[in-house]
Amino acid sequence: MSAGSASPGVPRRVLVVGTGLLGTSVALALTGDGVQVLLDDADPARVDLAAELGAGRPLRPGDVADHAVIAVPPGQVAPALKRIQNARLAPSASDVASVKAGPLAAAAALGCDLVAFVGGHPVAGRERSGPAAARGDLFAGRPWVLTPTEQTAASTTAAARSVAQACGAVPVVMSPAEHDEALALVSHAPQVVASALAGLLTGAAGHAVGLAGQGLRDLTRIAASDPVLWSDIAVSNAGPLAGVLRQLAGRLADAAQALEIGDELVVAELLRAGNAGHRRLPGKHSRPADAYAGVPVVVPDEPGRLARLLVDAAEAGVNVEDLTVEHAPGTPMGVIELAVLPERAGTLAEALRSRGWSVHSVNPPRP
Amino acid sequence: MSAGSASPGVPRRVLVVGTGLLGTSVALALTGDGVQVLLDDADPARVDLAAELGAGRPLRPGDVADHAVIAVPPGQVAPALKRIQNARLAPSASDVASVKAGPLAAAAALGCDLVAFVGGHPVAGRERSGPAAARGDLFAGRPWVLTPTEQTAASTTAAARSVAQACGAVPVVMSPAEHDEALALVSHAPQVVASALAGLLTGAAGHAVGLAGQGLRDLTRIAASDPVLWSDIAVSNAGPLAGVLRQLAGRLADAAQALEIGDELVVAELLRAGNAGHRRLPGKHSRPADAYAGVPVVVPDEPGRLARLLVDAAEAGVNVEDLTVEHAPGTPMGVIELAVLPERAGTLAEALRSRGWSVHSVNPPRP
Repeated sequence: MSAGSASPGVPRRVLVVGTGLLGTSVALALTGDGVQVLLDDADPARVDLAAELGAGRPLRPGDVADHAVIAVPPGQVAPALKRIQNARLAPSASDVASVKAGPLAAAAALGCDLVAFVGGHPVAGRERSGPAAARGDLFAGRPWVLTPTEQTAASTTAAARSVAQACGAVPVVMSPAEHDEALALVSHAPQVVASALAGLLTGAAGHAVGLAGQGLRDLTRIAASDPVLWSDIAVSNAGPLAGVLRQLAGRLADAAQALEIGDELVVAELLRAGNAGHRRLPGKHSRPADAYAGVPVVVPDEPGRLARLLVDAAEAGVNVEDLTVEHAPGTPMGVIELAVLPERAGTLAEALRSRGWSVHSVNPPRP
Repeated sequence: MSAGSASPGVPRRVLVVGTGLLGTSVALALTGDGVQVLLDDADPARVDLAAELGAGRPLRPGDVADHAVIAVPPGQVAPALKRIQNARLAPSASDVASVKAGPLAAAAALGCDLVAFVGGHPVAGRERSGPAAARGDLFAGRPWVLTPTEQTAASTTAAARSVAQACGAVPVVMSPAEHDEALALVSHAPQVVASALAGLLTGAAGHAVGLAGQGLRDLTRIAASDPVLWSDIAVSNAGPLAGVLRQLAGRLADAAQALEIGDELVVAELLRAGNAGHRRLPGKHSRPADAYAGVPVVVPDEPGRLARLLVDAAEAGVNVEDLTVEHAPGTPMGVIELAVLPERAGTLAEALRSRGWSVHSVNPPRP
């Protein structure tokens, strides 16, 4: 993104309604792309802060934009759209809420012009909220779902798509229902689960809470989220969210019953399914090495040893797909695990041993 | 920890049975403290790897230790203790399993000498397992629970306490039941929840999984854990774990029902309780600033501006308890939020404004 004139196809002037985390981040990204951004919020102090951060300038009477981005909680999207259309502030509009079907139905009920509106949802966020936490790079490389319907004008969708791309996001088209089912599973239910789990700690003994480790901290990190915003999201996506919560409640109750009657298989199956589901997740925690066998080699902590190991592996004719280094601070030896195709692991282990390396038992690919 | 002779009170020679992640980490820590460590494992390859990493030397026939640390899954603790006592390998023993009452009862049933055994649990771990992932600093600053009973000899508990301290951990004494209730809440139930949530992804559409973000990744990180070890832990702590899972399943089912009938209050209350529970957690995510008001100041990205701001705050006579910096890469302005006692926030804001700073609306302490 560079300052100057906007990228081709991007509306020249965009109104951002709602200058919280998402709205201000969109505004910062668009401003960085050369778009003129007008800022509006029910709280003038938030507009001032966003403006001072370089996100644009406050909306003034008489201003008109080429497109409006509505960045308010889902329950407020339809009224905001109605207001924008009534005041003719922009010829088309999109939103950024994490629920799509409910706000669309509410907009229809309010008599909004649905030709000029397309649902949008940049799937990105932070634990912090408000304009101060905004960042123009919040959406870089993230999916930005667009949910046009049969009514939506192509020009409306094109404007929203251009905004998404100007923010560095990757537009993804799906139906409102598909979006809401997906988000119930990957975002809304996890929020409720994190909150419910953290909620159990309110009544716990101090010595119990003192034993919490990184696992529980990770599981409850998003329990710090804004309850007002998330109540709105949950209620707006009530049907799909309730379905996922019922499914999860059923599995936990089944596990409890299995434990009570001493049936180990149910719990083991639940844990194995968790392994499999975890491997489907994209992003930093994906483990491509799971398809490979691991050849562990003990390596002294000396300069050039890792390079020498990789040269020896290459000379053995085995392609190293990935590697992990385990080396505790202050110890003289580390373990380097070379990830290779399972059928090549034996060859590599043999070749490295013959070159004097200390190679340990090969780890098979994870199930 | 330094090499050389062991710290006072630490057994001179310790047998570690089970050279997985925890056992090898204990062995590395003790070796680093000058203790002679003997290593034993059903899998000789794991002993070899641990020994090569500097964790000690393999147990040989005729060896006797001053204390034994049993580092095997909970279901195998009692048989391991029986074997150690039958072979007179050490005059006292402790374990590191994350369940305490079940293994103790099993040891009693096997006729073990419970005078010479004390339950122990260093509350630390990693997603990875096996000796290659071990680190001597794994326990530094972490709680190490000891669960002596009326039968336990004081000398047995003292030996286990010395081992914990030599590993850099903080010994904490509680009853086996207290430990197991606590761990069900802060560790075992979170594992089952993470696995159950990740398990829902196995049947999900690809476009849904593609929308997963950091929240779901955090919630399901430990779903990658070893299902064999965790089945053992779950079954060994069946009663307390089933209780927590039933409670959680009930809250999720209640939330689902409330959503279905349009009752927003139940979900809002669940989310607020999650906020409160999250604040009780110790460690990096604790937020001492929650007791303070936040004074947000917009600061240009120029050298020395933060120092100047803090000098001005000090000259205003207001103590800054904490600060957070929000500054997106590539933007010219950032927001620094100064955490101060709520009753001092107005004074600070006024003083900074009078010195030319751009101070925005004070954020009240979180509820």
